Amino acid sequence: MMKLTVKTQKREELCDITSEVQKVVDGSGMSDGICYVYIPHTTAAVAVQEGDDSAVGRDIMAHLRRLFPRDAQYEHNDGNMDAHLKAILVGNAATVLIDKGKLCLGTWQSVFLCEFDGPRTREVWVKVRAG
Amino acid sequence: MMKLTVKTQKREELCDITSEVQKVVDGSGMSDGICYVYIPHTTAAVAVQEGDDSAVGRDIMAHLRRLFPRDAQYEHNDGNMDAHLKAILVGNAATVLIDKGKLCLGTWQSVFLCEFDGPRTREVWVKVRAG
Amino acid sequence: MMKLTVKTQKREELCDITSEVQKVVDGSGMSDGICYVYIPHTTAAVAVQEGDDSAVGRDIMAHLRRLFPRDAQYEHNDGNMDAHLKAILVGNAATVLIDKGKLCLGTWQSVFLCEFDGPRTREVWVKVRAG
Repeated sequence: MMKLTVKTQKREELCDITSEVQKVVDGSGMSDGICYVYIPHTTAAVAVQEGDDSAVGRDIMAHLRRLFPRDAQYEHNDGNMDAHLKAILVGNAATVLIDKGKLCLGTWQSVFLCEFDGPRTREVWVKVRAG
Repeated sequence: MMKLTVKTQKREELCDITSEVQKVVDGSGMSDGICYVYIPHTTAAVAVQEGDDSAVGRDIMAHLRRLFPRDAQYEHNDGNMDAHLKAILVGNAATVLIDKGKLCLGTWQSVFLCEFDGPRTREVWVKVRAG
Repeated sequence: MMKLTVKTQKREELCDITSEVQKVVDGSGMSDGICYVYIPHTTAAVAVQEGDDSAVGRDIMAHLRRLFPRDAQYEHNDGNMDAHLKAILVGNAATVLIDKGKLCLGTWQSVFLCEFDGPRTREVWVKVRAG
């Protein structure tokens, strides 16, 4: 397993980590297999989504914020309960197939760390398996 | 990896692809393992959900539409930002266990391609691994 | 594949199943690999989320309930359409890496069965693979 470090810049943002994940695949020398991307945090998530228009990421953040306002009434009092809610819905793990040493992504897809309570230094755990 | 093609019929629908995915498992001759179902699109998703009452799928679409109206204010101007939002929440990959050559689904479960911006011809990538 | 049984106590609750899943890993004798956690139900889900403050689980349930009230207008008439909606968004499968025989969870992470239509006896299917 490789541990990547990602420094996020804002409270909420989608950070494209496709090239960092591809580098782990490159380093493994693996041609055919599966790549697991795992976020060990509870206020961040991982998603495979559109990487072409950065407006998509801003809209995602704006509309999740509309569903779960930061200042809604929450029992958990760390001031980031909105981030836990967004993280549980987006999810903390992604699976991407590997073919001929490359992540098999669709035309418009990129792999994103979804930061919901930054800026912070986040870890992304990547594991590659052959077969 | 096998690439399936699914022609969706409406802008929003759940398409049961269980039998197509099972055929890939059949063709692999694999008895015991894992089946990965991956959607290479950013306005469609995959889910394992109730396949018995088709009203469930219609309710899912109606209530996701309520949360993310197509005509809400979005910066992304392709007219399908609602579909990106639904897709990121439902997710673009599913994992199903295989036992004795069959997908291990619960009594009421089927595998669905979730179309949020059809009708279109969609791909579904399926990979089966032994062990 | 191991089938765990979990008796839930309320209509909606997060049940921490980390130790039960770890026991399956222990029993497998596996040092390095992947653990798949699969929920064969359509009104329950699995999530890796904060296990330190139980208020997080209560807030998650309260705010998902706000998005999908049980008594909203639904075509599916089993009285649990809200639970299907929550389940499809949280998801029915989790993947956790295994290192030195232990589930690789972040500092604050636990594995939860998310009950949305209990109390019931639920199954959790766990598969462990080496490599």
